[in-house]
Amino acid sequence: MKIIDGGINSPIGFESAGVEAGVKYANRKDMAIVYSQKPCVVAGTFTSNVVKAAPVKWDMKIVEESDYAQAVIVNTGIANAGTGKEGMDYCIQTAQAAAKVLGIPADAVLVGSTGVIGAHLPMDKIVAGIDKLVAAKSHNREDGTNASKAIMTTDTVNKELAVELDIAGTKVTIGAMSKGSGMIHPNMCTMLGYVTTDAVIGKEALTKIVKEDVVDTYNMISVDGDTSTNDTLLVMANGMAGNPEIKIGTPEFEAFKEAIHLVNETQAKRLAGDGEGATALVECRVLNADSKQNARTLAKSVICSSLTKAAVYGHDANWGRILCALGYSGAKFDPENMELYYAAGDKKILIYKDGMDASYSEEEATEILSQKEVQIIADMKMGSEEARAWGCDLTYDYVKINADYRS
Amino acid sequence: MKIIDGGINSPIGFESAGVEAGVKYANRKDMAIVYSQKPCVVAGTFTSNVVKAAPVKWDMKIVEESDYAQAVIVNTGIANAGTGKEGMDYCIQTAQAAAKVLGIPADAVLVGSTGVIGAHLPMDKIVAGIDKLVAAKSHNREDGTNASKAIMTTDTVNKELAVELDIAGTKVTIGAMSKGSGMIHPNMCTMLGYVTTDAVIGKEALTKIVKEDVVDTYNMISVDGDTSTNDTLLVMANGMAGNPEIKIGTPEFEAFKEAIHLVNETQAKRLAGDGEGATALVECRVLNADSKQNARTLAKSVICSSLTKAAVYGHDANWGRILCALGYSGAKFDPENMELYYAAGDKKILIYKDGMDASYSEEEATEILSQKEVQIIADMKMGSEEARAWGCDLTYDYVKINADYRS
Repeated sequence: MKIIDGGINSPIGFESAGVEAGVKYANRKDMAIVYSQKPCVVAGTFTSNVVKAAPVKWDMKIVEESDYAQAVIVNTGIANAGTGKEGMDYCIQTAQAAAKVLGIPADAVLVGSTGVIGAHLPMDKIVAGIDKLVAAKSHNREDGTNASKAIMTTDTVNKELAVELDIAGTKVTIGAMSKGSGMIHPNMCTMLGYVTTDAVIGKEALTKIVKEDVVDTYNMISVDGDTSTNDTLLVMANGMAGNPEIKIGTPEFEAFKEAIHLVNETQAKRLAGDGEGATALVECRVLNADSKQNARTLAKSVICSSLTKAAVYGHDANWGRILCALGYSGAKFDPENMELYYAAGDKKILIYKDGMDASYSEEEATEILSQKEVQIIADMKMGSEEARAWGCDLTYDYVKINADYRS
Repeated sequence: MKIIDGGINSPIGFESAGVEAGVKYANRKDMAIVYSQKPCVVAGTFTSNVVKAAPVKWDMKIVEESDYAQAVIVNTGIANAGTGKEGMDYCIQTAQAAAKVLGIPADAVLVGSTGVIGAHLPMDKIVAGIDKLVAAKSHNREDGTNASKAIMTTDTVNKELAVELDIAGTKVTIGAMSKGSGMIHPNMCTMLGYVTTDAVIGKEALTKIVKEDVVDTYNMISVDGDTSTNDTLLVMANGMAGNPEIKIGTPEFEAFKEAIHLVNETQAKRLAGDGEGATALVECRVLNADSKQNARTLAKSVICSSLTKAAVYGHDANWGRILCALGYSGAKFDPENMELYYAAGDKKILIYKDGMDASYSEEEATEILSQKEVQIIADMKMGSEEARAWGCDLTYDYVKINADYRS
């Protein structure tokens, strides 16, 4: 498989667009459509938050009950969460409006919202936006990028990706767009992530891949520990590549799963690296843990530690905070018999060993911690399991962005 | 019972002092002693972090194995954590040096350290500091305050307290000093908290009170979610008040427990309100939950949410973040059938009801959120259990303090 220049429109038969609908913000794209020329098998994972936004409930119902889906309508600015019983009415009206102009059933229309909680959707603007989206949608690369840009909120970079792979002699393509920068601590999936593919694959196989893959990708990132009410990851497969169907237990299934993993991991890392106010992507890599679950727990504890994150922002090699975060994670280990390293690019230095400071050079450590991508490596010396988690540094700008988000 | 003007020296027979020992900082008090004229029954709770600082291990051993303790020696600036096998040697040397000048056994000397992880203790300065402490210690109010000031690190206010109560006709006094401002998310107890009392009480009764009380006091506060390696709460009872012994299951036991609770809750709230960079104390009160444990879980989730904390700093009535934090806490509830309020002083306003905005006045909400003590009240409408948790707002100064703590 290989990463190609592309996005959500790269697979055969997908059309998308992003337009200015004025839902909350002026002068920026704030609505997107992803449409498939043929009906799609769809799989998804959603927030574990007890408080689920109306669009999450709508999508969960479609993923569970509908045989297929064919379009997604997304708005930014307003999350359509904390909107009482009216919230579901907004979803129904959105799906019905899109269904009418697209000539498809309303229960084939998925919806997504992101933005402030508690505000109500201006349905006149949403409906007008849908008309503009349907008129604008195309299979062009540019319109895929427009859709990806339209779902951004506090994101500073557009996050799209495309991967190509060979399935039994047939070229299959996967496209993706994701957004998310604050309220990011996905539990079963992330803020908004959309993946398209022209692969021929059944619902059971696609669902299996999505559910298994989020555990080590989207569920291993955190910006601020806050699990959103709107987290949604959807994967749509329209079968237009014409490959022999990908079945569970075959080499093709493994190859396709690996490609989805590459897409999910790349997008998840982009979310973490573009966390609100972030100046660096922080990866914690736990090696030689006694179990996979403990490896995940340890890695995630480090990237969630406010003190570790602030120290990275200050380029301060304060390894005590890393050790502390490993220690309160809930996983057992022997602090006298493990090692900590900092790494970035080709550089890697040992900083902690035998229960104490490994007499490293503070200058070298500061240089590593000044890079845009910083690795913290914990070798637990207990077994052979490993895990990685991704976060970002904690900066003044995170506080600034969130002290006054609504105004 | 009543709060009196006093501190760690208020109970009969306790002597203390705070001196400049130059452990890490110049020109500030950085070592403290608390000494009792008679041996004390002692109870304690300690960090649940797998990585335990050497002084925590030393104190745990004394609390478990020694019949009594008679002195505590504390230093700030260096945590004596992440110091390998030498860490325990520092504790032994400290206890031996203090034992020698005080004329008591080394296993009656408790030790405490707080500060940067990984640095080694300069034992010559510690030993010289002990000599100064023993020479300076007295039962005076001022020396109690000096001890309390000497254990501060990034704390901006000195946290001491004294409570008086009547036990079967005899006046009993409890004194306390606590410190802690960052790396505060106690699990079984807090950074450093010392409580003295002249009550006559056995070890079993004292231990029962301490273990039960931390659950709703120190364990319900958080500044940054980071559970320290050094958390220590010690309660020393020297029996010099001469009251009839306080026995489990008696009204006197309940009265004494209530007094210890007042001390612990007051000190815990002071730690939260003086969190690093904080401008406000945030209390979350959960009412009518279906179980005590769920009430605690919900309350703590709110005061730990970075987004809620940043919104309080911005005086922004962003209730969606509170709802979101309740939702990801792990406790189940019906978001369509619960209510949220903001309160401060005499003012209280309903902000969320029936799954949506309760059309409150933004001006009133902003006024409430601008106070020094802000209450967030969640009425779950499921049962009759309640809990409270305390935290603080998230500010630029938290990032500033922690981006460059070591220099």
